[in-house]
Amino acid sequence: MAIDKKYLTNRVTGEIGQASAIHFPKTRQEVVKIIQEVRDNQQKLITIGAHTGLSGATFPDDNQVLMSLEKLNKIVKLDIETQTLTVEAGVTIAEISNFLADTPYFYAPDPGSKAASIGGNAATNAGGMRAVKYGVTRDNIRGMRVVLADSSEIQVGSINRKDSSGYDLKDIFIGSEGTLGVITDLDLKIQPKPQFTRDILLGFESLTSLAPKVFEILSSGLVPATLEFFERDSIAFSERALGLAFPKIVGQAFLLITLDGNDSVQLDKELTYLTTLSEHALVLTKETRENVWQLRGAIVSSVELETIQEPLDVVVPINSVAPTILALKKMAKAEALSAIFFGHAGDGNIHANILKNQLTDEEWIGKLNKYLDQLYAYIAKVGGKPSAEHGIGILKKKYFQNYIGKNELSAMKRLKSVFDPTSLLNPGKIFD
Amino acid sequence: MAIDKKYLTNRVTGEIGQASAIHFPKTRQEVVKIIQEVRDNQQKLITIGAHTGLSGATFPDDNQVLMSLEKLNKIVKLDIETQTLTVEAGVTIAEISNFLADTPYFYAPDPGSKAASIGGNAATNAGGMRAVKYGVTRDNIRGMRVVLADSSEIQVGSINRKDSSGYDLKDIFIGSEGTLGVITDLDLKIQPKPQFTRDILLGFESLTSLAPKVFEILSSGLVPATLEFFERDSIAFSERALGLAFPKIVGQAFLLITLDGNDSVQLDKELTYLTTLSEHALVLTKETRENVWQLRGAIVSSVELETIQEPLDVVVPINSVAPTILALKKMAKAEALSAIFFGHAGDGNIHANILKNQLTDEEWIGKLNKYLDQLYAYIAKVGGKPSAEHGIGILKKKYFQNYIGKNELSAMKRLKSVFDPTSLLNPGKIFD
Repeated sequence: MAIDKKYLTNRVTGEIGQASAIHFPKTRQEVVKIIQEVRDNQQKLITIGAHTGLSGATFPDDNQVLMSLEKLNKIVKLDIETQTLTVEAGVTIAEISNFLADTPYFYAPDPGSKAASIGGNAATNAGGMRAVKYGVTRDNIRGMRVVLADSSEIQVGSINRKDSSGYDLKDIFIGSEGTLGVITDLDLKIQPKPQFTRDILLGFESLTSLAPKVFEILSSGLVPATLEFFERDSIAFSERALGLAFPKIVGQAFLLITLDGNDSVQLDKELTYLTTLSEHALVLTKETRENVWQLRGAIVSSVELETIQEPLDVVVPINSVAPTILALKKMAKAEALSAIFFGHAGDGNIHANILKNQLTDEEWIGKLNKYLDQLYAYIAKVGGKPSAEHGIGILKKKYFQNYIGKNELSAMKRLKSVFDPTSLLNPGKIFD
Repeated sequence: MAIDKKYLTNRVTGEIGQASAIHFPKTRQEVVKIIQEVRDNQQKLITIGAHTGLSGATFPDDNQVLMSLEKLNKIVKLDIETQTLTVEAGVTIAEISNFLADTPYFYAPDPGSKAASIGGNAATNAGGMRAVKYGVTRDNIRGMRVVLADSSEIQVGSINRKDSSGYDLKDIFIGSEGTLGVITDLDLKIQPKPQFTRDILLGFESLTSLAPKVFEILSSGLVPATLEFFERDSIAFSERALGLAFPKIVGQAFLLITLDGNDSVQLDKELTYLTTLSEHALVLTKETRENVWQLRGAIVSSVELETIQEPLDVVVPINSVAPTILALKKMAKAEALSAIFFGHAGDGNIHANILKNQLTDEEWIGKLNKYLDQLYAYIAKVGGKPSAEHGIGILKKKYFQNYIGKNELSAMKRLKSVFDPTSLLNPGKIFD
């Protein structure tokens, strides 16, 4: 049976790879069997979640065997007493959100793609909008079951709230992009939904005038649930794609801030404080709120409709956000490259999406590579990291290897060799 | 030069070990040199923080070389822009707290012993009183420098707020009890101090009537900064030792709850809710507050003045706290063993301190071992863990090894072999 082209495609570059087979296991036992088979046949295995990744981590570049976990997709158990939701790896973020909609609980991480699977989120340590208050995926997983390359199964983490009983195995597998083991099911931390939310949009003349306000907010003791920034030209893509209008507000650069909590009086007080940070402040009504968040959420997919893009997810220390954005803009201008900038200001996580537009393939590759060389050199210089939340995959591998310390890379390679000595699982991803 | 007996003593059992030498490095470079020397001489090395551990993790049972980091004790840098405090491993919790006293920031973890070093806290993933709201040590370390057994130095973690760039090396070393590397300096997460705090004491007839209230509080959406429980007989030790009186309040079992935040109106509302949970509620004044916390903090050291004790720090899922405490009490009674129970109710972390009192050494060992066998079997049965915050060391090794899965133990041993193939660092601790 032919393999659906979707699974062979690098979503970012459009490149088509080759795989020798694809499997759709429905149980952990089937995962174990597939790993055994692949090992016996001396093949290599790539595990796929929902194929929404942006770093090429599941791209078959060497005729590997593919294993999509999309049918390992049961919601197993809601345990309100320990505030734990147990799900299989193929369950999507949207399914988790829908499942919890009628309960008093929510799963806090809110990554861009709601079509992403929770297993993929764990494998990349996905971040998202609410990380500034609620942490990233890592912070919201209590335990997991993982099948190792030798097909043995291990339990990592647990539903206990504290643990100093031996080495922390859980955090090794989170963010390991399918290279150390296959995550089959997860115990997620859920928590009581806050009773009230407030959303406010602050307009600024430019990112230069916006940036200092981020530090001011974070230092004030106020912990917003989200603290997003974007420019008018980013949101314009979503406006065109969705046919929705961004609210009337003066400015070229915006902060979109959500407050949540159980005390509406306190939230209103915090809101009042936030309105002092810009002459152009718009508290969102229920209706505009939905529009604005839809527009914000659709930036990446809307750009995709108009041009090829290189979606970057660098992270820098929070006091470097402002100079970094300005420097990255300046570099793009110098290369005559179009780029949009947005991201999670509260975490220092900057999305720079570089746009191909009318460039020929050759121009695009040439300019892009030149730009990326400069960009990642800058990020390393200010103490940042190449990936905040998408992972390294193959697309950022070169830059990751260039800037990580020799001893740190050696430690990671040793980890790989111990859990997957024959490099059975997703070989050649993250590092060579 | 003779080695001060303190460093040779197992603080819990009183046992005296033997070491071949002791070093007090003052810089990371000296740590590197000591590791090289120990390796060249085919010796073994035990790293000591402030010698406050409760699991025998630094006990020299085989003539090892000791390295105390108490002189590696500089506060290196306060970076308010990234809210990071960089310190060397030998700095104590009290020193960090004093240093930050005049700033608007605090380091959230509040482990029992303020004399403990931050390096020791990281090595055991220390928990403490405020974990229910602010997390454990793991959650409050941004980055660390670690010297490995081959004397290479690595940077793990960073001051970036998000990171999906390769494997998470940081969390491997946190909680590894000096067996994988030597943590020399740390970048700690600090955060703005909450402006207001409220403390309330709730009295109950017994732990049986207290326990359900813990779940009620945690489910209400309220996130207390601390949620401690203890019985009157625990606090009686502190009253005798400190010459302080516990406030007049009806009850045999108590919840001691701290709320903190920036909105005093909201805190008062939460306080009002808490007073509905018991007929005997006492909102603490500034004066009683200090007394009560001193009494709570002094339980372990006060018991130490009267008798030998075995201080346990088991953890169970939060819905098992009530039945577990009752079961452990019942087992102690059946063995005619004195025991006190207290702990961090919000985390499921139960301290059961078993008291030797008038028992002969032989009776004590016999009864204690019988009790521990039953206790750890029970903890495993309800899905708990032998150590929430003290670590395994040597004292809990047997039980840890009994109840951890075969594959999980094998994974941990593989980790050890990767970072310390000749078992140079703290051999025989955590597992054989």
